[in-house]
Amino acid sequence: MSTKGGALRLGTGGEFDRLRAIFASLGAAGRGLGDDCALVRIGARTLALSIDLSLEGVHFRTDWLSFREIGWRATAAALSDLAAEGAQPLGVLVSLAVPENRHPRPGNASPAVQIMSGVGAVARSVGAHVLGGDLTRSSRYLVDVCALGVARRPVRRSGARPGDGVWVTGRLGGAGLALAALLAGRRPPAPVRRRFVRPEPRIAAGAWLARHGARAMIDVSDGLAADAGHLAAASGVRIELALERTPCWPGVTPLAAARSGEEYELLVAFSPRFRERDARAFRRATGLPLTRIGRCLPGRGIRMTDDGRRITPPGGFDHFPGR
Amino acid sequence: MSTKGGALRLGTGGEFDRLRAIFASLGAAGRGLGDDCALVRIGARTLALSIDLSLEGVHFRTDWLSFREIGWRATAAALSDLAAEGAQPLGVLVSLAVPENRHPRPGNASPAVQIMSGVGAVARSVGAHVLGGDLTRSSRYLVDVCALGVARRPVRRSGARPGDGVWVTGRLGGAGLALAALLAGRRPPAPVRRRFVRPEPRIAAGAWLARHGARAMIDVSDGLAADAGHLAAASGVRIELALERTPCWPGVTPLAAARSGEEYELLVAFSPRFRERDARAFRRATGLPLTRIGRCLPGRGIRMTDDGRRITPPGGFDHFPGR
Repeated sequence: MSTKGGALRLGTGGEFDRLRAIFASLGAAGRGLGDDCALVRIGARTLALSIDLSLEGVHFRTDWLSFREIGWRATAAALSDLAAEGAQPLGVLVSLAVPENRHPRPGNASPAVQIMSGVGAVARSVGAHVLGGDLTRSSRYLVDVCALGVARRPVRRSGARPGDGVWVTGRLGGAGLALAALLAGRRPPAPVRRRFVRPEPRIAAGAWLARHGARAMIDVSDGLAADAGHLAAASGVRIELALERTPCWPGVTPLAAARSGEEYELLVAFSPRFRERDARAFRRATGLPLTRIGRCLPGRGIRMTDDGRRITPPGGFDHFPGR
Repeated sequence: MSTKGGALRLGTGGEFDRLRAIFASLGAAGRGLGDDCALVRIGARTLALSIDLSLEGVHFRTDWLSFREIGWRATAAALSDLAAEGAQPLGVLVSLAVPENRHPRPGNASPAVQIMSGVGAVARSVGAHVLGGDLTRSSRYLVDVCALGVARRPVRRSGARPGDGVWVTGRLGGAGLALAALLAGRRPPAPVRRRFVRPEPRIAAGAWLARHGARAMIDVSDGLAADAGHLAAASGVRIELALERTPCWPGVTPLAAARSGEEYELLVAFSPRFRERDARAFRRATGLPLTRIGRCLPGRGIRMTDDGRRITPPGGFDHFPGR
C-alpha cells in the first residue's frame, strides 16, 4: 500500500491499526491511506477530496454551539484538509441528520436551515459552493461534509526530507482554551470562543505555501504533537520540535498548545533555503505569522524540547483508544 | 434558483419544502436543487457527485443485513445516482461511524472492516476505487458515501419534453417483496433477498442510455410513482404511466411495484424516435429489459392507469412526513 492517493482522517494509536486493517481488506479497490485528502487526476487537473464527519455528542454539543456554528465548524474541518493540500475549494456536499423539531417557533428558521446557513457561510468565505446534500431524520444531529477542490501543486504529508525546517501558521492553543472553558461550564471570552466555533480554513495560506515550495503539509486537527507525528511517519523522518518557539495564544503554555486539537493551522516542512524573510513575505500576503518551530532529521518519530529540556510528546485525541 | 447544477436527494412532500427553505437560505453559495447528482465542470470534463447517508434504524437494520451488505447497499445507493446521470464512477469517499465492538471474536473481522469490504466490493464491481474516509465512534452504525464520477453527456431530470416516451430498466418490486418478508419476520427467498441486500447500480445501463440520447433520467429510489413525479416536476411535463405495462417481479402487482422504493432501476425519457428495436439493442448490450411504460404530455403531475382504469398515484417514502 502506498501513502499516496488515499485519504483517511486518522486519530492516533489504535485507530491507525483498525484503519490499516480496513484498507488492507479492500485489496485493489483501496488506494492506500495516510493523507487527509484523496487526489484524483481529471484530464490536466488534480482534484483534492476530503470527507469529515461531525456527530453530536462526539464532535460537538448543541449547548456549546449555535446550529449555524455547528454547520460552520463541520464544514471548516473538511475545508481545512484542502488547505493542507494547497488546494482551492470548489464546493461541498453535505449529509445532514436532524431530530424532529419538537418546538418550532414561528419566524425561527429550523435547525436544519440554520446548520446549512453556517455551511454556506464558510463555503462562501473561501469561494466555494454548496453543491448538494442529503437530509435524514435521526435522534441526534449529524453533519458529514465532503469537500472538493483543485490542487495545482498538491502537497502531501510525505514529502519532508532530513534537513527541512518545520514551520507553523498562526498561533496555537485558542481552541483548547475555549474547550477548557466550555468543559468547566464557563463562557469563553469572545475572541477565544470564535476561534473554537468559527475556525477559518487556511485556504489562502495553504495555496501560498504550496506555491512557494512546501515539501509536506498537514493541518493541526489532532494537535501539533500528534500531527507532527503523522507528517514524520508519512515522510520517513524524525521531527524535532522546540516547544518554546511555538506561537501560543495568551495564557496558553507551549505544552498545552502542542496538545490542542482542532486548531486548523498548517504545519509545513520547507527546505532549509526557506528563511525568515520568506516567512515575512507570507505574513504580508496572508496576515498570519509563520514560525519555524523545528526541523527534520534522519530517523523516525517525534522529539520535543522545551527550553532545551527533553519532554515526552503529548498524545493526540483518539476516538478509538486502546484497541 | 435553477434545477441545474445542484444535487439533493429528496423524499416527497414536506421534505421538499424543508430543503427548499434550506437552499433558499444559502443565497449565492447554493446552486439550486432538484437532481441526485451535482455537476462540476473541471477543464474539459464534467464531474458528477452524489452523497448518500444510511443510518441504522432509519435506512437499515443489523438483524436484516450483514455488515458487508450494509456497506454494499449504502454505496450502491450513491453509485445509482451516478448511473442516473449516465456517469462513469471514479471513486467513493466514506464516512463511517461504528459502536464499540463489545464482543470481538478472534479471527472475525471487525464490523468496520466488514462494512468497508462491502463498500470496496460494489465500488470494484463498477470500476471505482475507495478514495478515502473518516471513522468515528457512535452509538449506532452510520455509512455516508460520497460518489464521484465523470459524465460525458450528463442526463438531468429536467430534459423530458411532451411527446417523449417513458421507459424503465429491469423489473420492479423485488426490493419491496424482500422488505415485506423481513418486516413480517420471514427470510425472503435468495434471489429476492439479493435484490434488497446487494442492489446493482445500473452504471453500464445508464451510460448506454445517455449515449443513445436519453433526455431525462432518474433512479427508482423513492418508488416508480414518486420518482416519475420528480422527473415530471423537474421537466415541467405531465407523465402518464400505464401500470399494467410495468415489468414486475413474480408475485408483485403493478401497483405494489410502483410503490416499491430502493429498486435502483432507471426511469428514462426518450424522444418518440426511440423505439422497441432500440430497447432490444439495449437488452443485447446490458442483459436488461427496457420497457416503455408511459409518455410525457403538456401539463404537470402524474396520471396512472391500470388496465385503462385511472388510479391514484401511490406516494413515496418520506423521512419528514407532514411538515
